[in-house]
Amino acid sequence: MEKGYVHVYTGTGKGKTTAALGLALRAVCADKKVYFAQFVKGMEYSELKAGDLLRNLKICQYGRDCFIIKDPTNEDKKIAREGLTEIKNILREGKYDIVILDEINIALYYKLFDVYEVIDILKQRKEHVEVVLTGRNAPKELIEFADLVTDMKGIKHYYEKGVQARIGIEK
Amino acid sequence: MEKGYVHVYTGTGKGKTTAALGLALRAVCADKKVYFAQFVKGMEYSELKAGDLLRNLKICQYGRDCFIIKDPTNEDKKIAREGLTEIKNILREGKYDIVILDEINIALYYKLFDVYEVIDILKQRKEHVEVVLTGRNAPKELIEFADLVTDMKGIKHYYEKGVQARIGIEK
Repeated sequence: MEKGYVHVYTGTGKGKTTAALGLALRAVCADKKVYFAQFVKGMEYSELKAGDLLRNLKICQYGRDCFIIKDPTNEDKKIAREGLTEIKNILREGKYDIVILDEINIALYYKLFDVYEVIDILKQRKEHVEVVLTGRNAPKELIEFADLVTDMKGIKHYYEKGVQARIGIEK
Repeated sequence: MEKGYVHVYTGTGKGKTTAALGLALRAVCADKKVYFAQFVKGMEYSELKAGDLLRNLKICQYGRDCFIIKDPTNEDKKIAREGLTEIKNILREGKYDIVILDEINIALYYKLFDVYEVIDILKQRKEHVEVVLTGRNAPKELIEFADLVTDMKGIKHYYEKGVQARIGIEK
């Protein structure tokens, strides 16, 4: 089985979670199994339905019903920690060909767990597993460790014009 | 019905077509109808199967069986031109909520058609239609016209290590 690589999608522009979703779709089309974990987020995004539409895609959230924008609570930390433990097992087991850790960079930014812990878990994965980590402010240690890094630079965004996040487009 | 916006995903990093695919998946999850047009490309990508898996997603290619890397032929121009005419009608009609013009920036780069022609077609769309244009080297006129632009900057890519494009990941 081919070696799997580690991707990081970071930066302030639109497209990080979206690219991870696209990667999931392409992989499912090629009969691969995908585990899509969302850290920090626990809201009812449209994409949660993708797990019903696509047989080989499983989506799980390890966050509360709001995006963390300041001091995380103990509850936030607990949920993120449980998520990380589950991911550790999933990566070791190798049942899923692609594991997406959406917004894990945000979890790292808020110190819900440590970057070295994440790198350690990545190192322990079954060799064929491809891992995708998203979220702004990817720590430099993770960028150093990854095989592929894209910085999604926001050149222009309609949020600046006052457009709200819309169902089916952003959420 | 809400106004639809124009997105551009450009730059040299991985994630442009992938983000467009992700946007398509999220939109389909929210019961929107998506038309995914691939310019320049005519190869058998895994993602073509997505049209079979997802009822509200239609994928069409307007390219030959290879990626254009130098002087396009008259056949390349003819196929791209036919594609653009079809897209013009689709955008005017408004039956699809989201229309993705994948790699259209490459088509513009190779002068298969003109950027002002594309902008003119975008202006003529039904107001609610959201349009996503991808490909490196987006022309400045298109960046100017768009509501949202993300520059996907390649910080690191495993292609540099000699890794080939893989089924289910890149193609």
